[in-house]
Parts: sequence; C-alpha cells; structure tokens
Amino acid sequence: MEGFSHLDEKGNAVMVDVTAKSETQRIARASGRIYVGEEVYKAITSGTVSKGDVFACSRVAGIMAAKKTSELIPLCHPLLLTGIAVEFEPEEDKYAISCTCTVKLAGKTGVEMEALTGTSVALLTIYDMCKAISKRMEISDIHLEEKDGGKSGHFVR
Amino acid sequence: MEGFSHLDEKGNAVMVDVTAKSETQRIARASGRIYVGEEVYKAITSGTVSKGDVFACSRVAGIMAAKKTSELIPLCHPLLLTGIAVEFEPEEDKYAISCTCTVKLAGKTGVEMEALTGTSVALLTIYDMCKAISKRMEISDIHLEEKDGGKSGHFVR
Amino acid sequence: MEGFSHLDEKGNAVMVDVTAKSETQRIARASGRIYVGEEVYKAITSGTVSKGDVFACSRVAGIMAAKKTSELIPLCHPLLLTGIAVEFEPEEDKYAISCTCTVKLAGKTGVEMEALTGTSVALLTIYDMCKAISKRMEISDIHLEEKDGGKSGHFVR
Amino acid sequence: MEGFSHLDEKGNAVMVDVTAKSETQRIARASGRIYVGEEVYKAITSGTVSKGDVFACSRVAGIMAAKKTSELIPLCHPLLLTGIAVEFEPEEDKYAISCTCTVKLAGKTGVEMEALTGTSVALLTIYDMCKAISKRMEISDIHLEEKDGGKSGHFVR
Amino acid sequence: MEGFSHLDEKGNAVMVDVTAKSETQRIARASGRIYVGEEVYKAITSGTVSKGDVFACSRVAGIMAAKKTSELIPLCHPLLLTGIAVEFEPEEDKYAISCTCTVKLAGKTGVEMEALTGTSVALLTIYDMCKAISKRMEISDIHLEEKDGGKSGHFVR
Amino acid sequence: MEGFSHLDEKGNAVMVDVTAKSETQRIARASGRIYVGEEVYKAITSGTVSKGDVFACSRVAGIMAAKKTSELIPLCHPLLLTGIAVEFEPEEDKYAISCTCTVKLAGKTGVEMEALTGTSVALLTIYDMCKAISKRMEISDIHLEEKDGGKSGHFVR
Repeated sequence: MEGFSHLDEKGNAVMVDVTAKSETQRIARASGRIYVGEEVYKAITSGTVSKGDVFACSRVAGIMAAKKTSELIPLCHPLLLTGIAVEFEPEEDKYAISCTCTVKLAGKTGVEMEALTGTSVALLTIYDMCKAISKRMEISDIHLEEKDGGKSGHFVR
Repeated sequence: MEGFSHLDEKGNAVMVDVTAKSETQRIARASGRIYVGEEVYKAITSGTVSKGDVFACSRVAGIMAAKKTSELIPLCHPLLLTGIAVEFEPEEDKYAISCTCTVKLAGKTGVEMEALTGTSVALLTIYDMCKAISKRMEISDIHLEEKDGGKSGHFVR
Repeated sequence: MEGFSHLDEKGNAVMVDVTAKSETQRIARASGRIYVGEEVYKAITSGTVSKGDVFACSRVAGIMAAKKTSELIPLCHPLLLTGIAVEFEPEEDKYAISCTCTVKLAGKTGVEMEALTGTSVALLTIYDMCKAISKRMEISDIHLEEKDGGKSGHFVR
Repeated sequence: MEGFSHLDEKGNAVMVDVTAKSETQRIARASGRIYVGEEVYKAITSGTVSKGDVFACSRVAGIMAAKKTSELIPLCHPLLLTGIAVEFEPEEDKYAISCTCTVKLAGKTGVEMEALTGTSVALLTIYDMCKAISKRMEISDIHLEEKDGGKSGHFVR
Repeated sequence: MEGFSHLDEKGNAVMVDVTAKSETQRIARASGRIYVGEEVYKAITSGTVSKGDVFACSRVAGIMAAKKTSELIPLCHPLLLTGIAVEFEPEEDKYAISCTCTVKLAGKTGVEMEALTGTSVALLTIYDMCKAISKRMEISDIHLEEKDGGKSGHFVR
Repeated sequence: MEGFSHLDEKGNAVMVDVTAKSETQRIARASGRIYVGEEVYKAITSGTVSKGDVFACSRVAGIMAAKKTSELIPLCHPLLLTGIAVEFEPEEDKYAISCTCTVKLAGKTGVEMEALTGTSVALLTIYDMCKAISKRMEISDIHLEEKDGGKSGHFVR
C-alpha cells in the first residue's frame, strides 16, 4: 500500500521485512506532558518525600514500558534496546509535568515507537498516582522530538 | 500521604488495599486524539482497503492493551475486565483521528486507567502504522470522559 | 453482526460485555493430536528418562499457555482459571501423541478457548522438542470435546 | 539424549547452547487450516464488513503470537524476528480457512516454531470469533511448509 | 500423590482444582534479606538521593512481580491481588537490607507464593542496582512470616 | 552516581547506555538452595515418579524465568540468551535442594541477573510444589558463582 510500510499490496497488516537491513546506532527522543491542575501540581512538587516516589515510580514504569513496545504495538519489531532514560520537568506556568524519554539501539529499525511508548506510560503512571485528587488531568503533546541513525537521517522537530 | 492513595504514610508506593471493598458494576470511558496532518489523514480516510486495516489493527491493540494495564502501570490492581470497546472517529477539520475506549467491570476498583491505557495504545498504533508518511504527528487530549460505579459516584466531564 | 458475538453492529471487533452475567461453575475439555512419525514416536515412547521430560515440559507449557489465553486471543476475557490439567496419550497405530486439556472456572464466560489454547501449545512444545529428528510432524484434530456451565448447557461432541 | 537437542545427557530439558553459531538469514513458512462448517464459512466469507474484521483481528493475533513464541514454548530461544506475515485463504470445497504464516530472521536459530505458533494462534482467533455459531470447528493440518537458512539447508515439504 | 497437591495420582503436574472453594479474605507476609557487604551498604544508606531511588525502584519491581506470580510459577492460580506492600529495612550489623512483602486477597487460594515472589524480585533488583560495586552479594533467608485466611488457619512463624 | 551504574548524576534510575559496547561471548553461573526440612526432603527424593515432575516443572520454570529477566528487573537490558541450563542437587545432610542456573550469551552485557533470576524462580517453584507439606521452607544462599566475558574479566567466587 503506497506510503504505508505496515500494509502489504492488498492492504493487510504485516510486520515489515527488515532482515537484510544493516545494524546502525540509533536514537530517538520523544516528549509529552500531563496537565494536572493546580492542586495536584502543588501536591507533587511540594518539598515532601512523596514527590520522589511519584516520579521514581513513573520513571520505572516508562523504562519498563519502552522495553514492552513490541508486545503492545502489533507491528513493531522486537528490539534489544541498549539505553533508556526518562526525565520529568515540572512546568509551573502550565500546572503540568513534561516527560522526555530517550531510547538507544544498535539495530535494524528506528526506536521512535519505543520512545513514544515510554513517554505515554510514564505519563499514565503519574495520572494513576494522582487520580484520587483530580479526575480532570489531561495527557497531551506526545510527539517525536529527535531521531537519528538509519537511512532517513537526522530529524529534529 | 494525604491525597495520594498510592503512597503510604512514609511516601512509599503501595498497591492500595481494596480487599474489603464490595464488587459493583463499573464503567469508564476515555478519549484522545492523534493529529496526523493532511497527508496522512487523506491516506487513511480515502476509500481503500487500507483504511479498514489501520483501524482494525489499532482497535485490537487498544483492546489488548486495556487488558495489560496492571502490567504497565505499577500500582494498578489486576482486574477481570468484562467488556472493552474502542472506536475511532475521523475529524477532517483537525486532520485528526479521535479515539474513545470504553471499559466495563464488575469489581472492586474503577477502570479509568484501563480506558486511558486502551486509548493511548490504540493511538500509538495509528502512529506506528502511519509514521513512514510523517514524523510530525502528535497524540493529545487524552482524558477521562465518564466514570460510573463505586463510591465516588457518576462523573461526566 | 448477526451470529458474531465479537463484532458490533458495524462489524468492528469488541470484547463482549459480560458485566451483568452471573458466575457459574464451568468446565471445558479440548483435545488434539500430533502425528510424529515412526522414528520420533519410538524415541519418545521408549523406556528412557527422556520420555518423562518431553511430556513434563510440554504439560507445563500447556498449563502456562492456558493461563495466557486472554493475552494471545485478542477478544478473550481475562479469567481466574481455577483448575487446569493436561494429559498425553501415545497412539501407536497412528504414530501420534494425543493431548487433552481440561480447564475449570467459577466465572462469567466459558473456557473452551483456554482448553484449546492449552492443547495447542502443549502440542507445539512436543513439536519443538522433537524437531531435530523430523521436520514432517503435523498437529491436527484440535477441537472441543466437552463443555458445561453457562446458559448454553452441556455440550459433548 | 541422542536425537533430542533439547535434552541433556541425563534427559533433562535445556535451552540448547547456540552461543557460537553464526548469524544467517533464515525463513520459515508454516500452514494450517480450520474446518468451520458451512454455516460459519458462509458467514465469514459473505460480502460484509465482518469478513474484514475477523481476518484482520486474527492476522494481528498471529503476528503478535509469533513474537511471543519464546514465552510460550519453554526451550525456544528469544529471537529478534525481522519479518512476519500471516495470510488466509478460504477453501470453499472444505468449508475451511487455511492460514499461512511466514517468519524471517537474521539470527542463530531456525524460526519454524515461530511460524507454527503464529499459524496456531491465528487459527485459534478465528475459532474464538466464530464459536458463537458453531462448537464443532476443528483446527488441523498444522505443519512446516518450507524452511531455509542455517546448516540444515533448504527444506520444502 | 500423597502430600503433593500439585501432582495428580500419576505424579503429573496439575493446577489444583479450587473451583468449589469459597472466597475468603487472605493475607500473607514473606521476608528475605540481601547481604550486600560494607561498601555497598554504606553507598545505599548514606544520605544521598540515590538511596531513595534504589529502594523506590526495587519496591516497584517487587510489587509488579507479585502481580506476575502466576506467570512465573507454573502451577500458581491467577489471582486478583487486592493489596501489595514492599518494605525495606537496613540492618547495619549484618551489612544487609531486609525486605518484607505483604500481599492481600479476597479469593480462593493463599497468597504466600505472591509474597515470596515479590520479596525475591525486590531483592534481585537491589542486587542489580548495586552489582557494579560488588559481585559477592547474597540473597538469603526468604521465608513465609505469616499467613491468614483459608482453611489452614493463622500461621505465624 | 558514583559506583551505581543504574543511577544518573541526579540519582535517577536509568537503563545504562551500552549501545557502543561490542558483543562478546558471556557466561554466568549462579546458585542457591532451598531448605525443605526432613519430611519434604524425603518425599521429593524417594524413588517415585513425583520426584521427576517436581524437578522437571521447576527446571522449566527457571529456564522460562531467565528469559523474562528484563521484564522483571526494571533496569536490565533485553538480551538474546543463547543457552540456559538449570540443575538440582539434593543435599541430604542439610535436607536441602541446591540449584545451579547457567546462562550464556553472545552480547553486550553480562548475564548474572539472568542466572540469579533463573535460580530464584526455580527454587520458588520447588517451594510452591511442596508447600502443602511444610510452611517452614527457606530459600537461601543465592549468589553468583562464576562469570566470564566482558571487560571485567573472569570471576570465580
């Protein structure tokens, strides 16, 4: 199907054949944001021990989810991720927490889905840990920031 | 920790004790949106067989992810989901696809995380299937639409 | 979609809503067979220690796979299986090994998919352990033998 | 144990040591069939939208299951599958649907178990989606069609 | 097999039939210890931010592993755990960290395996995070501390 | 964080970047022990068929768990294990069963966590299969025995 690498000529889903591609060093960085509102924002950024654990737990969830990407996204190739980092940044003007997930690989395909999945699940975990305070949080702005390695070259948004 | 059901009095993460809660019929509905841009939008909504498979594949991914929520979100309880539906709606004015995931349960805890996770992974799968066309898609506006069952009553956004 | 419980009125896949169904005691028994050929048959049924381990390993694989059914079959409900047994029977006249998987549940839906999945994976494991001897084995005759509990009554093939 | 690569000299199960093997391009193709009977056959092959979704859902299930092979079959090596395709073919004379799963790898071991597992789970998913219509379907004829790469050469059944 | 609930009369592994058992509130508490040596002990208990993250990460790992018990231990029943807590206690006299995992359930079987699995994986995660400093750590003393609910009554070690 | 490869300069958990490391042949061997007490010891080492199945089932569990290490231990890299063996040794003087798990890899990181995880889950499975006889078993002495490959050289305890 023209343009859709994941559909064959009949429009059926396939996991694209990358057998003959060579391994290169690849990196992808994705980011997203959860708008938590004033009350939640103050609770998780106030100087208490809780702050550490909300972020620590969400960071672990994001890292583990990036490793599970090929189990979640049907046509993603299994990959031996060689590095994953998840970072959070409080944004007081928006009452939001932004999240960046960076994934590295020496392999045959890009890792943007892994970075996007890590970001999504890290933000969902913040949602989960704060949902007793607010039902009106919103996860937004999840996109690819940067990608390098592979034949499509260096992309920066 | 006041307000945080998932942190104990020392601020440590715990899976909240719901042993003594009674089972009630519960439902949660979440939605989100992927901004795909004009080129991708036209490709997946044009009258070809491909459209069916992009949405069919993403729907299956969302349903399967909702079932995996307690594996992804560290403090979520395992639950016997009794119904899951994922729907997509093209939004031509935004060059976007919106997604709604509805989850049902007869059980002890709410299912908003399951609905949010199903929505997120369904949208990530659309991203994956279209990423050969555009690197500038964005997943946004993921939030709870409605929730019912349990002691906190009926919530509609 | 008439007749298809797993498709909604537009033909889209859904995990059927069973929220309001009551729990009953349910059982399903499925069977299948692997035709292994004379050489493999004699190797795994001769009086050696290996026989034990081929069957023990395949039995464990079948039991674990039955528990994973809702992760493998997209529209299956997660279920708290309350009993699983896998049995093998050598059939010398066919140079085959038959497998029966019995699954029990106190719950809201039938467990035939769990019994069929346990049977399939147990037979695939026998295949795996013997494939160095023959590439011409065949897995066949996988079907439901018996099912009870739930509104469709007692079925025996 | 002579002939059994998966049993050590005492007959105990082991995951065979392939550390020193070199990577080669490998392919395996397996097929199988589900006998669905006339009523189901007509329902899923009639010209309605449902047909698309039964096959789309089962195709996704087969692809995802092939990726899970090493979690299901105890002694299978984890592998970075580089390509997976699942195809269905209605066989009107048999009231059957045949399924073919093709798996590719650049790696150290053959991928026949992945192709067989993908085939099995794709057929089980068809069973699941049609079981409300018939309890007498049968999954059969699952075997290796072709295998290439690795030291055992090119096999065609 | 007398005494072995997980073996049938022929000595074959089975997942014990608990279909007819009634649900009761159950709790199990297990503990274990990792001897880390003086250097690691001082590194993880000194007053730095790292301490928080070693324990936070290991706590999350233990909680998530308790939920995975039925995937890891072949004959364990899947269970809807209703509460999980993991706690660590530095033991300076032993240069050890002790870990306690408490698991709750309203269900048909005991949860000691879940508590023991949570303890084991929490301790393995501490090992992982400190292994760059020492290769001589040892995980020991993993046992059931207390168990209640079900017909075998209240057990305290 | 000095000494902690799994914490970045702020003390946050990261999956260490090994992208640029070269692949080498690696091996790790870990061991541990379960003290079962006299009654259990005699039951599982008496000359009956049960003995085979307790050990066969636990061996399979250990092998499968070693493959799942990167899903269990948050900061472990996914790895393509190329060989896994699990062995048991009855120790009559201690009424204990010792377990050794050996893991091989051609890859970028060491496999000691995989060997330790395989050992732990194999011993937990013995516990599970014998817990109807005794609640006082104890899993102990889990440590690395030997490790080779990679820049830290050959380690023997």
